[in-house]
Amino acid sequence: MSKTTAGRFFEDYHVGQVIEHAVPRTVGAGERALYHALYPARHALYSSDAFARACGLAASPLDDLIAFHTVFGKTVPDISLNALANLGYAEGRWLAPVWPGDTLRSVSEVIGLKQNSNGKSGVVWVRTQGANQHGQPVLDYVRWVMVRKRDADAPAPETCIPNLASALDAEELIVPEGLDFSAYDFALAGEPHRWGDYAVGEVIDHVDGVTIEEAEHMMATRLWQNTAKVHFDATARENGRLIYGGHVISMARALSFNGLANAQMIVGLNGGAHANPCHAGDTVRAWSEVLDRAETAAPGVGALRLRLVATKGGAAGVLKGEDGRYLPEVLLDLDYWALIPM
Amino acid sequence: MSKTTAGRFFEDYHVGQVIEHAVPRTVGAGERALYHALYPARHALYSSDAFARACGLAASPLDDLIAFHTVFGKTVPDISLNALANLGYAEGRWLAPVWPGDTLRSVSEVIGLKQNSNGKSGVVWVRTQGANQHGQPVLDYVRWVMVRKRDADAPAPETCIPNLASALDAEELIVPEGLDFSAYDFALAGEPHRWGDYAVGEVIDHVDGVTIEEAEHMMATRLWQNTAKVHFDATARENGRLIYGGHVISMARALSFNGLANAQMIVGLNGGAHANPCHAGDTVRAWSEVLDRAETAAPGVGALRLRLVATKGGAAGVLKGEDGRYLPEVLLDLDYWALIPM
Amino acid sequence: MSKTTAGRFFEDYHVGQVIEHAVPRTVGAGERALYHALYPARHALYSSDAFARACGLAASPLDDLIAFHTVFGKTVPDISLNALANLGYAEGRWLAPVWPGDTLRSVSEVIGLKQNSNGKSGVVWVRTQGANQHGQPVLDYVRWVMVRKRDADAPAPETCIPNLASALDAEELIVPEGLDFSAYDFALAGEPHRWGDYAVGEVIDHVDGVTIEEAEHMMATRLWQNTAKVHFDATARENGRLIYGGHVISMARALSFNGLANAQMIVGLNGGAHANPCHAGDTVRAWSEVLDRAETAAPGVGALRLRLVATKGGAAGVLKGEDGRYLPEVLLDLDYWALIPM
Repeated sequence: MSKTTAGRFFEDYHVGQVIEHAVPRTVGAGERALYHALYPARHALYSSDAFARACGLAASPLDDLIAFHTVFGKTVPDISLNALANLGYAEGRWLAPVWPGDTLRSVSEVIGLKQNSNGKSGVVWVRTQGANQHGQPVLDYVRWVMVRKRDADAPAPETCIPNLASALDAEELIVPEGLDFSAYDFALAGEPHRWGDYAVGEVIDHVDGVTIEEAEHMMATRLWQNTAKVHFDATARENGRLIYGGHVISMARALSFNGLANAQMIVGLNGGAHANPCHAGDTVRAWSEVLDRAETAAPGVGALRLRLVATKGGAAGVLKGEDGRYLPEVLLDLDYWALIPM
Repeated sequence: MSKTTAGRFFEDYHVGQVIEHAVPRTVGAGERALYHALYPARHALYSSDAFARACGLAASPLDDLIAFHTVFGKTVPDISLNALANLGYAEGRWLAPVWPGDTLRSVSEVIGLKQNSNGKSGVVWVRTQGANQHGQPVLDYVRWVMVRKRDADAPAPETCIPNLASALDAEELIVPEGLDFSAYDFALAGEPHRWGDYAVGEVIDHVDGVTIEEAEHMMATRLWQNTAKVHFDATARENGRLIYGGHVISMARALSFNGLANAQMIVGLNGGAHANPCHAGDTVRAWSEVLDRAETAAPGVGALRLRLVATKGGAAGVLKGEDGRYLPEVLLDLDYWALIPM
Repeated sequence: MSKTTAGRFFEDYHVGQVIEHAVPRTVGAGERALYHALYPARHALYSSDAFARACGLAASPLDDLIAFHTVFGKTVPDISLNALANLGYAEGRWLAPVWPGDTLRSVSEVIGLKQNSNGKSGVVWVRTQGANQHGQPVLDYVRWVMVRKRDADAPAPETCIPNLASALDAEELIVPEGLDFSAYDFALAGEPHRWGDYAVGEVIDHVDGVTIEEAEHMMATRLWQNTAKVHFDATARENGRLIYGGHVISMARALSFNGLANAQMIVGLNGGAHANPCHAGDTVRAWSEVLDRAETAAPGVGALRLRLVATKGGAAGVLKGEDGRYLPEVLLDLDYWALIPM
C-alpha cells in the first residue's frame, strides 16, 4: 500500500471531526528576518524590540501574519490539498502574541459541510486554532474550502452550514496583555495619523507596487510549510505556478504601511476573498477603506476595521463591476481589525 | 604576485596531506529558517523544539543536511575549485547534532590519488571531518573528485586507491545521545508508518515536484559558503549556471517527507552520485527505495537504509537504462541511513 | 487629505534641519544568515563567533555593511524618495560594532543645499548618524543626492556647500574596543597576506563573477527597509527595476574576499560613486586598488585604504575612459578603510 498521502477528499470529513495537524514548528529570529526580506514590512512594533517595549510589550512579537501563515500552513495537508478553491475566512482572532522561540501547532474542527449540486465536490467549513508550546491559543479562525470528492457516487452528507458572524464586534477583539499606546512615538512609527484621523468610508491608496518573483513566493510559502503543489510545480497547471493567497495578503498588508503606518497589530479577521489568481510577474498594489472604528479598554489603543484590497492594476476604491463581481485586476479583498493609537 | 587563489590542481595533493579549511562558521536560527524557506523540509525533529524535547534531545538541532552542507562548503576552495566532476561519497557519519550557535570548521586528509590515463587530470580522495567549537567531531565522510592538472607534463603520483566500504554497517551508526523514540507522537510527526512498516525493496514515489529557480539555488549555495563559480556566474559555462549537487540532495530529502515523514534523522551516508546536471527551470521530483533495515541500541530507535533518487521526470523505481548508465532524467542517486521509530 | 507621503522635495529641506527617521529596527541572527545567503561573504570575523573571540571581541558582530544598509535604509523615505541621483558619500565612520539583538535608528542633519542651474532640482547634503538602543552611535556618514523640486518656481535657497574631507585620516578611524590581531589565525581566515604584503598602487582582480537575480536584490533591499519604488516595481521605469546601489557594494565587497580575505572590517568610507546602473542579469565582478596604508594603536591591527570597483565586464584596473568619465561597464567606485592584521 502506498505510504504517501493524496490528501483528504470531501467524503473524508464529517461535522464534529477534530484534526490535529502535523509538524509543530518553532519560529524565531530567522523567520522574522525572512518575513522582512520577503515583504516591505515596516510596522514599528514588529520591527523593533525597543519600540515594542515602549508600547508595554516584553519585546517585539513575531508579525501577526507570521502567526497566521504558520497556523494556516499546518492545515494545508489535511484541509486544502484537494481544494478547488479557498472560499472564505471568518471570525479570525489573534489571541496572544507569538514570541521568538515559540512552537506553534494547529488543530481544526469540521463545523460545516455542504455537497455541491453537481455531486462532484462540496464545501467544508473548519474552525482552526493555533496554540503555542504552553497550550495557550494564539489564533482562532474559520475558513471554508471547496473540496473534490474521491467518488462522485458517494452519498452526500447532511448539509450543515455554520452560522458565522459577518464581522467581529470590537468587544470580541483581544488586545495583547500590557499593550499601551499612551506614550506612542508617532515620529518613530513613521506617520502622524491616529485613530481619530481616520473616517469611515475613507479610501487610502498605498501608492507603491511590487513585482512578484517565483523565488520569493515559493520561499515564503515553504517557510510556512504550506505544501500545496500548485505553488511549487510549474508543470502542475497550464498557467504555471499559482501564488499562495497568503503571499498576496502579506504583500498588501506591508504596502499598506504608507498611509496606515500606525495600524500596528492585526487582531481580527472578519472575512476575505482571493478574488483572482496571482502569478509571478504581476505587480501588486494595494488600497484600503476604513469600514469601522471602535475604542478598546487598553490605554490609548483604538481599533480600525479596514478593507485591504490588493490589485494588479486599476484605481483605488474600485472593487467590483456592474455585474457585482470582482474586477479581473482585483487579487484580494480582506476585512480585518487593527489596533492603532487613539 | 597575485594575491588571489586559483585553487589547487591535481599535482598539489599528496597522500597524507592534511588541509585545514578556512572560515569557520557559526550557524543558528537564521540558517534554520532559510533552510525551511529553500526546501519543503517538514521532519518534525528539525522543525519543533517541543517535538525534539519529547524525543529526548535538548532542543531541535539544525537539520542534518545543514551540517553536511556547511562542512562540505568549507572544503570547496581547497578541494573542488578545479574539479571536473564530483565522483562519489562514502563512509559518511553524523557524529553529534549541531545546535544553533555552534561554530563549524572542517579539516580534510588526502587518502587517495590516481592520475587519469589521459594525463590531464586525476582523482583525489579526501576524508573530511567537521567539528564544532569544542573540537567535537560532528560529521565525517569521504568524497572523491576529478581534478585538473596544472601541467599535463607533471609526473603522475603513485596510485593509491583507498579501500572504502560500499555501505556502513548499522553498528557503526552514531545515535545522538539521549534520543528516545519510545513515546514518539506519530500524529504530530505527520504519518503513521514506523520502522516495521517498511519492507526491503519497497519503492516510494514522493509525489510532489518543485521547479527550481536561480535565486534559490544561489542563496542556498552561498549560505554554505560554497564558492564554486559554476553555480553563480551565468557566463562561466555554455549551459548557464550548474546547480550545486547538495541543493538537489536537500530538495529530494525534503520531498521525501511524503512517505518517509518518520525517517527523522540522517546518520549515515553510504554513497551518492550526481547522475546528471541540474539547471534552473528543472522540476525536481523524488522517489526512495528501502535497501536495508536495522535495529539500534537506543530506545524505540530503528534504522532504515534508503536509496533517495531525484529526477526531473520519469517513473519511480527506474534508475538506469539497459546500458547500465543512469537515465538522463535522473539527477541524484543517494544511499543513506536514517533513524526512524520502531 | 491624503494619508500617504510622496516624500520630501528640494524646497522641503533647509540647512540645520534635523530629521529623525522612522521605524527603528532590531537586527540579529536572521539578518546575518540572510546576508550570507545573498552575498558570498566569507570574512571570518563576521562568520564565526569563535574567530571573533580569538580576535578580542565578545562575539561575531553583524557585518559592517549590515549596519550601513540598515542605517541608510531608514533615511530613504525622508531623503531619497524623490532623488534623481545618489551623488556621493564622504566621511563615513563605523563607530561601534552592531551585535545581534541591537536595535538601530537613524537621524540626519541637512548640512548643505545647492539648487541646480536648471531650477528644477537641487543637491541636498545630509550627515546621517545611526545609533543603537543605548543611544550609542554606531555609524556616521555624509551623503548627497539630487532631489526634484515640487515647484520649479519656488525660490532657490542660499547655496551652502559643506567642506568635506576627500578621505579620512587614519587617525580618525575607530578601532572596535578590544580588537587584537596579534594572535590572528591566517589559515582559518583563508589567506596568508598581511598588511605589509600590500603595496600602494597594487591592483587585485577578485576573479569571480555573480549573475544577479531580481528576487535576490529585492530581498536584500527590503531587508534594510529601503522603500525606493524603482527597486521593486518593474513598471516604474522603462528599463525595469534598478538595483539598489548598496546591493552592488555588498556583492563587490564579498567578492573581494579572494585576495583581501584579511581586510576584515570596514571602518571608514571615504567616498563612493554608483557609476552606472545595475540590472538583473548583469554579472558583477570586482577589483581593488590599494590606495594607502596606515598603522593603528590596536595590537597587530593595521589599516588599508582601498578602492573597490564593481564592474559588469572589462579589465581590472581600468576605471575611466579618455574623457575622464567612468567606463560604461563600471558599476561602483568605492573608497574605504579596512582593518587588517599587521
